[in-house]
Amino acid sequence: MNETGVAVLGATGMVGQTFLWLLAGHDWFKPVYLAGSRTRGGRVYGDDICWRLPMQMPERIGRIELNALDIDECVDSGARIIFSALPSELAADVEPALRKRGLAIFSNAGAMRSDPDVPIMIPEVNPEALDLIREQGFPTGGFIVTNANCSTTGLALALAPLRTFGIEQVFVTTCQSISGAGYPGIPSLDICDSAIPFIPGEEEKIGTELLEILGIEIAIYPTCVRIPVRFGHLEMVWVKFAGSVRKDDILHAWREFRNEECSPLTPAIPVLHCEEDCRPRPDMSFSGEPPGMQVFTGRVREREGWIGFVLLVNNLVKGAAGGSIQNAEFFLRKHGDDT
Amino acid sequence: MNETGVAVLGATGMVGQTFLWLLAGHDWFKPVYLAGSRTRGGRVYGDDICWRLPMQMPERIGRIELNALDIDECVDSGARIIFSALPSELAADVEPALRKRGLAIFSNAGAMRSDPDVPIMIPEVNPEALDLIREQGFPTGGFIVTNANCSTTGLALALAPLRTFGIEQVFVTTCQSISGAGYPGIPSLDICDSAIPFIPGEEEKIGTELLEILGIEIAIYPTCVRIPVRFGHLEMVWVKFAGSVRKDDILHAWREFRNEECSPLTPAIPVLHCEEDCRPRPDMSFSGEPPGMQVFTGRVREREGWIGFVLLVNNLVKGAAGGSIQNAEFFLRKHGDDT
Amino acid sequence: MNETGVAVLGATGMVGQTFLWLLAGHDWFKPVYLAGSRTRGGRVYGDDICWRLPMQMPERIGRIELNALDIDECVDSGARIIFSALPSELAADVEPALRKRGLAIFSNAGAMRSDPDVPIMIPEVNPEALDLIREQGFPTGGFIVTNANCSTTGLALALAPLRTFGIEQVFVTTCQSISGAGYPGIPSLDICDSAIPFIPGEEEKIGTELLEILGIEIAIYPTCVRIPVRFGHLEMVWVKFAGSVRKDDILHAWREFRNEECSPLTPAIPVLHCEEDCRPRPDMSFSGEPPGMQVFTGRVREREGWIGFVLLVNNLVKGAAGGSIQNAEFFLRKHGDDT
Amino acid sequence: MNETGVAVLGATGMVGQTFLWLLAGHDWFKPVYLAGSRTRGGRVYGDDICWRLPMQMPERIGRIELNALDIDECVDSGARIIFSALPSELAADVEPALRKRGLAIFSNAGAMRSDPDVPIMIPEVNPEALDLIREQGFPTGGFIVTNANCSTTGLALALAPLRTFGIEQVFVTTCQSISGAGYPGIPSLDICDSAIPFIPGEEEKIGTELLEILGIEIAIYPTCVRIPVRFGHLEMVWVKFAGSVRKDDILHAWREFRNEECSPLTPAIPVLHCEEDCRPRPDMSFSGEPPGMQVFTGRVREREGWIGFVLLVNNLVKGAAGGSIQNAEFFLRKHGDDT
Repeated sequence: MNETGVAVLGATGMVGQTFLWLLAGHDWFKPVYLAGSRTRGGRVYGDDICWRLPMQMPERIGRIELNALDIDECVDSGARIIFSALPSELAADVEPALRKRGLAIFSNAGAMRSDPDVPIMIPEVNPEALDLIREQGFPTGGFIVTNANCSTTGLALALAPLRTFGIEQVFVTTCQSISGAGYPGIPSLDICDSAIPFIPGEEEKIGTELLEILGIEIAIYPTCVRIPVRFGHLEMVWVKFAGSVRKDDILHAWREFRNEECSPLTPAIPVLHCEEDCRPRPDMSFSGEPPGMQVFTGRVREREGWIGFVLLVNNLVKGAAGGSIQNAEFFLRKHGDDT
Repeated sequence: MNETGVAVLGATGMVGQTFLWLLAGHDWFKPVYLAGSRTRGGRVYGDDICWRLPMQMPERIGRIELNALDIDECVDSGARIIFSALPSELAADVEPALRKRGLAIFSNAGAMRSDPDVPIMIPEVNPEALDLIREQGFPTGGFIVTNANCSTTGLALALAPLRTFGIEQVFVTTCQSISGAGYPGIPSLDICDSAIPFIPGEEEKIGTELLEILGIEIAIYPTCVRIPVRFGHLEMVWVKFAGSVRKDDILHAWREFRNEECSPLTPAIPVLHCEEDCRPRPDMSFSGEPPGMQVFTGRVREREGWIGFVLLVNNLVKGAAGGSIQNAEFFLRKHGDDT
Repeated sequence: MNETGVAVLGATGMVGQTFLWLLAGHDWFKPVYLAGSRTRGGRVYGDDICWRLPMQMPERIGRIELNALDIDECVDSGARIIFSALPSELAADVEPALRKRGLAIFSNAGAMRSDPDVPIMIPEVNPEALDLIREQGFPTGGFIVTNANCSTTGLALALAPLRTFGIEQVFVTTCQSISGAGYPGIPSLDICDSAIPFIPGEEEKIGTELLEILGIEIAIYPTCVRIPVRFGHLEMVWVKFAGSVRKDDILHAWREFRNEECSPLTPAIPVLHCEEDCRPRPDMSFSGEPPGMQVFTGRVREREGWIGFVLLVNNLVKGAAGGSIQNAEFFLRKHGDDT
Repeated sequence: MNETGVAVLGATGMVGQTFLWLLAGHDWFKPVYLAGSRTRGGRVYGDDICWRLPMQMPERIGRIELNALDIDECVDSGARIIFSALPSELAADVEPALRKRGLAIFSNAGAMRSDPDVPIMIPEVNPEALDLIREQGFPTGGFIVTNANCSTTGLALALAPLRTFGIEQVFVTTCQSISGAGYPGIPSLDICDSAIPFIPGEEEKIGTELLEILGIEIAIYPTCVRIPVRFGHLEMVWVKFAGSVRKDDILHAWREFRNEECSPLTPAIPVLHCEEDCRPRPDMSFSGEPPGMQVFTGRVREREGWIGFVLLVNNLVKGAAGGSIQNAEFFLRKHGDDT
């Protein structure tokens, strides 16, 4: 497959940096247009940004020009796919404008998720949602596909293979890392040696997005907490099933949960269970194969008809930029010939 | 009231230091015997220990002699009340030995909690448990009174005034501070910029102690997580009641929950609700009146027949040393004349 | 002595909170007017601010009204002494205006420090600087007295008693806490699990203020680093003296360095040496007598004609609010009758 | 070049893990024998250890057998080169025993550094030190080559190209990460939200090793501080030169400092200067090319005849495992044919 030219909008933030780290080593995609939402352009990426990922900035990425965001220039750049890490208000303007120009937008922004024609998609969980792009005008016109918010993504993946047991109620407490709030994000005096038991809008997002993605009616009780950790969201979950379910059933369901067709950012094993009691932990959030794309689970417990477990999702990779790219890969696998 | 001579065993650890900080300014008690479990004696307290509380070590405490633990010396010291912060294995030997010598032991150790004659007591929650000391031989002999473990204490206090609504199920995720594991405790490489979703034995303790203290049959689903915070345990809770309960009912119940009789470490308001969404937070765990003795709650939410909330308990004060001292105060108020 | 009415300007920030914590228990001063630089007034202090100190907010402080800053109201409030924790730009307007109205201003802001008639004062180090207020119009008019910046204050105190040995060169690396940058200050993604070897303007301040306060010509080589610690500035120092100086000389000089006349925030022992190698540490920065007002030193080493040592200063107390209050106490001791 | 079989001793600790991460992708070396100092053997590496690096454990490494350390088995394994991350006491026994068996040992342990025939080598700084192996018996017998301790390595690299200006005095304050103390290492209660201005033996090591490696007589004044950061050592340096040296001279010397001959872990640019004031920072310590092998410098300042600067060295890669591997590469480049 030839490399497809892609654009990254909102390229300087935490999610934007993650897009570029993932695209630098990507066989299918080649970044041809980068734009920051607050940049004035005229410099190369490496000279303009403060890189904050634990892995180094790929050298070739640092040499790409960073532009002030401009719809026409984006269209003219030759990018066929647009990855968006724009702030929501900006995304609400820019993404529909680019769709109107016929482009395929894979967005991490929440702005368009409430549009009923715009799918919120995780390929392992609700691949059928991609068909919604026909409602937007595909194949003759452009479209927008979004991924779920970071904490929802982890939970949806761990629960997807358990749908067969009849999920009825889900209690979840998240311990979310500071990178999830972007930059400058959380002031250090609010979080160093402390924790904040509130993340604006997050519990509502889990409530609505999880149901839409899983495609079932369940009762969800979320509490979202910010903790002083740079990367990785930990989630503590208790689930009630319609029938009797044992620990072994859960482990078996996760083991059987596989991606048959592969693509660069599609993990063969979407949910990987850790045996050790003290796992998973946020400091392993860039582990996995591909790195950051697997959800790790642990501590499965049975208690009076409920199943408890813990999960870890990389909020920047699977929960954001990697999720968007995986969606684009899934689209190309399915419609590569149509376009 | 004259000052009662007290001993502190296990005086050098985190809980021991908290005992001494609280006793230094206490009107009823006067430390007359300090012993460390690993000290060889012969030096004053201030020269032998590494003080790790955020408040300074009280000057008069620093000048008290620190002894190697010795039952006879403890008995001969004139201490009428023994506060124990001993490690569990040691407490299992020492506490019964001191009881046999006729002393009143108020212990933070878990060793004796499973003895059916030894009360696990929080005066605001199950004051009647104190009567168990008669089973141990009081008033002619000694006795042991324990306080609950730190995370249970916070939960029991927040739930106590809600018993009237008929508690049926409780989901709780704790975010516990590193001081709860004592010193040296958690290696820094395990917790700095990370979190550990497992605390050995903690979920079991919550399961058994909470029921005993609240005196009711409920189903509890706990998950205990260690986070990189020095002091204060945060707990995220969802509760199911027998009937319909609204947010205002909860707030009202907490507001009405009062300690009528007072003593130095008995808060007038055991549970104080915070209105702001981002509260309570661990960095306020030494706040309150008396400092560290109140449980703070916040973020009360209704959702499909359940009530969610967040609480903060100071794991060293109310959840450990302060709880023991409050128990001793309660005993003296009730039986001061009998002894 | 009757309580003197005082105002606190910039009352809501980290330094402002420290002023109020110190004034709540102060025998000489009584806060009669509080103003925030960004507050709109009309609420009591406790309802309007997010308290961020490790000690609890004093109850009586929380009930004082918090005003929008207004020169006339401040003058009419009856406050005779004004404590300023204003941002520098605002201080440059407000402090001279209040001085013109005849008030005594003790300021932690850097705005007026460069005015040759405005003393930068640490009573233990350069008490004679107070005479400068006569150049500003005292006793008939108002005046401004500033304290040094936080890292300079610690260094000046440790070096003051060593001036007698002939200080020639000083190398200092600071490890400064995040509270020194105020709120919101440092974004958490810049400092959690990292450090920043640059603090804008800080090295220049140390260079100029230290010489002015010590009143001697020395060569200073500072490097200022921000580390992920909430409170307390650690400073690593090497000093070259004119003649031969031994470790014992240093320890002796610090031991002999005493405040003979006392006042509430004047420590009897301004510089307290710690014997243990692993001391002083930031987590003891609110220790000392009075808490936060002593500079702690440690690790004195001789090496080829140089003396090395480490010091810790509480950046909010002695290095800011406490320093200002101590200056006001010093003024009242000296001129209490004149005014 | 065919892959050379290598052994890693002390394979489970932080430095051992770094050895294996670096060797997994190494073209010249292939791990054929892994031993932990406290392991009982019989399991594969991935099942036995708790991986603590920010990058994921390479899959093929996880499948290698982990042995209990045994000299005979190590010799029989076919490993021609031994990488040692053993604790010092153990290294003092094991390394000479393996040398006696004719093996080439590249060690990160400090045990043998004081032996005058054992070189402490950084190829960019003192490549001639490799000749010392002839004193140990090479080419007929085995030998030991050590790398410098982590903080010395960073300083030696930044100073090496400045020797030409006549270095006379060096003041250095280090801010060292917790991974430098190994596991379990620093208790979290000692370092979370604090710092420790003392690292046992570290200042002495810098004093002696730096002179030996640079091969010049200079006066060194070090202060070593532990800060709450996982990876990367920051060092704040002031240097006095014999003659007048300007900032541009320094930058030029670093720019010209090059490795002409290359090998997998030899950086083309050993010292890379960062222009931004707030760089380098510990969170970029796994950056560079190869990752973790470059020393980053920043904030060059001139002041009264001195030059100040800041440097960052990855304490696990260039400062430990990577340094040992680079030494082995250098040996093979030079003596590949002799052996």
